[in-house]
Amino acid sequence: MAKEQKGGISPTRGEDFPQWFQSVVRDAEVAELDHVRGCMVIRPWGYGIWELMQRALDDAIKRSGASNAYFPLFIPLSYFEEEARHVEGFAKEMAVVTHHRLEQDPEGGLRPAAELPEPLVVRPTSETIIGRSFAKWINSYRDLPLLINQWANIVRWELRPRVLLRTTEFLWQEGHTAHASEEEAREKTAEMLGVYREFTEGPLAIPMIAGEKPEYERFPGAVSSMTIEAMMQDGKALQSGTSHYLGTNFSEAMGIEFTDADGERRHAHTTSWGLTTRMVGAMVMTHGDDLGLRVPPRVAPHQVVIVPIARDDPAPVLESAGALAEELAGASFDDSPVRVHVDRRDHKPAEKRWEWIRKGVPVVVELGARDIDSGVITITRRDDAELNREQHPRESAAGLAEALAEIQATYMQQARERLEARTTTAVTSLEQFRDWFSGEGTADGGFVRAPWSEDPATLKTMGELGVSVRCIPFDADLTGGATCVLTGGPAKVEAIFAKAY
Amino acid sequence: MAKEQKGGISPTRGEDFPQWFQSVVRDAEVAELDHVRGCMVIRPWGYGIWELMQRALDDAIKRSGASNAYFPLFIPLSYFEEEARHVEGFAKEMAVVTHHRLEQDPEGGLRPAAELPEPLVVRPTSETIIGRSFAKWINSYRDLPLLINQWANIVRWELRPRVLLRTTEFLWQEGHTAHASEEEAREKTAEMLGVYREFTEGPLAIPMIAGEKPEYERFPGAVSSMTIEAMMQDGKALQSGTSHYLGTNFSEAMGIEFTDADGERRHAHTTSWGLTTRMVGAMVMTHGDDLGLRVPPRVAPHQVVIVPIARDDPAPVLESAGALAEELAGASFDDSPVRVHVDRRDHKPAEKRWEWIRKGVPVVVELGARDIDSGVITITRRDDAELNREQHPRESAAGLAEALAEIQATYMQQARERLEARTTTAVTSLEQFRDWFSGEGTADGGFVRAPWSEDPATLKTMGELGVSVRCIPFDADLTGGATCVLTGGPAKVEAIFAKAY
Repeated sequence: MAKEQKGGISPTRGEDFPQWFQSVVRDAEVAELDHVRGCMVIRPWGYGIWELMQRALDDAIKRSGASNAYFPLFIPLSYFEEEARHVEGFAKEMAVVTHHRLEQDPEGGLRPAAELPEPLVVRPTSETIIGRSFAKWINSYRDLPLLINQWANIVRWELRPRVLLRTTEFLWQEGHTAHASEEEAREKTAEMLGVYREFTEGPLAIPMIAGEKPEYERFPGAVSSMTIEAMMQDGKALQSGTSHYLGTNFSEAMGIEFTDADGERRHAHTTSWGLTTRMVGAMVMTHGDDLGLRVPPRVAPHQVVIVPIARDDPAPVLESAGALAEELAGASFDDSPVRVHVDRRDHKPAEKRWEWIRKGVPVVVELGARDIDSGVITITRRDDAELNREQHPRESAAGLAEALAEIQATYMQQARERLEARTTTAVTSLEQFRDWFSGEGTADGGFVRAPWSEDPATLKTMGELGVSVRCIPFDADLTGGATCVLTGGPAKVEAIFAKAY
Repeated sequence: MAKEQKGGISPTRGEDFPQWFQSVVRDAEVAELDHVRGCMVIRPWGYGIWELMQRALDDAIKRSGASNAYFPLFIPLSYFEEEARHVEGFAKEMAVVTHHRLEQDPEGGLRPAAELPEPLVVRPTSETIIGRSFAKWINSYRDLPLLINQWANIVRWELRPRVLLRTTEFLWQEGHTAHASEEEAREKTAEMLGVYREFTEGPLAIPMIAGEKPEYERFPGAVSSMTIEAMMQDGKALQSGTSHYLGTNFSEAMGIEFTDADGERRHAHTTSWGLTTRMVGAMVMTHGDDLGLRVPPRVAPHQVVIVPIARDDPAPVLESAGALAEELAGASFDDSPVRVHVDRRDHKPAEKRWEWIRKGVPVVVELGARDIDSGVITITRRDDAELNREQHPRESAAGLAEALAEIQATYMQQARERLEARTTTAVTSLEQFRDWFSGEGTADGGFVRAPWSEDPATLKTMGELGVSVRCIPFDADLTGGATCVLTGGPAKVEAIFAKAY
């Protein structure tokens, strides 16, 4: 009962991490699966976080030279028939529109009518449609590079949906670029992965391991797929952003050609890269604790919430809280005024404080009539595990911007320490590998960094353990004569192995 | 030929206004219908305008107290069965998803597979789904008002699509609010129409007539629909934003109830309001001329474009252009740094100048090697019908922010003069009414402001002329004994009559 009053999340992370995730997403009013199986309502607190993520990432994408545009939600079925490998990867999860009207059925209900001559697929990704626009727009080498980004909703039918992590509809950005040379396209692929890494390690405070996907995990139709992988608190990996070099595969299928400076017609080299609302889930699973979310200040819709404590005569307290909010908003954090919210609702102050702690607001300020008289404010910092109330002179309020910077740094530091502590290089045999991954544990899982033979037979071994190769890290350091952790035979690469979301 | 070099639009507005619109939208690279019948690709220049519109309107919506959220794209068919009037209004234009997988057909093509147990409608508007979330979230009067906004894509199957104006898929925001009292809900309905009016008359420089929709033009299921209506250059009306008071119609169908302060359970009063990518089309048809777009500076992705003129040795000119861009971006317009773009592409300077004029950039600056030596810049203002090149001392560049303010004001002034000049109160008989609306004219059409009986028989007369009542204007001033312009009988209201997009 006491726990419930304080708004603790049930179960705790230690008791049942997957269920803790569902509970915290629900109790902090981030999102819910509702209305349609596998589809998500993103509630204002969750959407506010996503909007700040969008703003930060969009700015970075624009700095990289790309322009935003918008392409149709629907893709003609025939567009998929030409990219065999691509359609193979998505055919099992495509929502198909077949009718464009409703009519009354004999029982008085409604049924689809007016069948379409060609069914339309709700986009599972937009390479096939954006590529065909590129083919129209690109004519000469002067039209290259062409750098386009789209913010959109995407549909991939999920048989086992999980809120924020695996949903039939999700939101994302997808970048698509075309280049005159392979070298330039590969550079862009790496550059955009870097943009993702700066975004996730900056505003989201989630440290990443960056690398190349093994062939069997590549994007359908890609020549090379790069990824950044994060570690959640249960030791599992979460793929956080991918960037693909598509070679001329899509160009050839769709006719993206240009006349080069030497007069020759050539196929463009294309790339694509995407990041989704999954990252809201990653933020929850990286920073959340048993009391709720901990939102990194740079993406917190409210960075400071003021809870007025006024029993008999609320007016002067509310007025003073408003003035304090203005003072605070005068301070600057992350190149913007501090985002301050005064919670004026007619609820008990203690309830309000716990609600904001549960929602992960970085700093909660309580302000009562007596505090105003004595010129103090009471501060709770979300990065303090004890949630101590600290009294400060009111004049020090502007210093809260500094507290926000500290909290942002603390969250990153804690996540980085976990990633480092729980990535082992000490697993060197199949037996140790099995031991490491056999637990369902929360505190004991993690990443294995070890030599790998790339032998297809190892996929089966991994599959049985629910493990996959997350990436061949860019900073891999394979010594001569290293042996594969799974086969004992000669290793070709160093890999990151993990269970994954 | 000379005309083509200058990038003039063919046909001109006077020759064929609807075709001019298609041409200018294509030639200025705003948008195109492509890939799927009735669906739109919004190209970077058009999307950049939409993004600035979004930013301005989103800020205003947030100031009104609403929070953004996101709801599923798909709506179960059964959700529509309970709102008879609502479904009647949309049933003929709904895209329906019936399958969630593709499989190979015997001929090697692809076909839909895995039929859904219940078909899903691609949202034509979200009252039915957001209302059901409201029913879950609202319990007490303390939860009210609930103010939610969604930015989303919408699908309404169009049999006669027109780019930007009538498209199967379009982008919009839809606001949905719930209130404890009718009075408060009606106030919110009017407040949000006011937000739309300030947005369209401000950033978009499009003057509006605001009023109430007649009953036969109401949103399906609404008690009252308010609208703002603009006049395009061909004298036709374009509905620009609507705000609906829904009474308790949707609350009763979906169970949006709350326990009031007196302990009674009551149905909430709801509103909804929306504005779409149509407004990009409205901007084109309000401000465009025979040379292309004229984008109001407040929503121009580039407010100033610098065209470097460098034949033999481009480096110093490009460097000087870059420095000039920085100086300009130091100036402030509309509370932001001036948006300056240096066009460094390898094209002829004259081509580039005409491209930016066609795209409607407010100010084009040419800068050549000789200009640098003599400390001058050459300016073309898009609000100057002659497009004169004016030489100014380079030091005066910061003054361009003032030019932007003048251009913004000029566009509004020109549009307001047209709206006033072409809204007549001199049409007082059916014969004059027929005469006024019988032309297909571009310069001679316009609005008729006249007394109306609201007699249902008048709808037929109007229908034959392709005319509708756009609104009962809020500033209507009906004198006693006024007679209906269509029937000669007693009038009930003063109405705005027009052909419309």
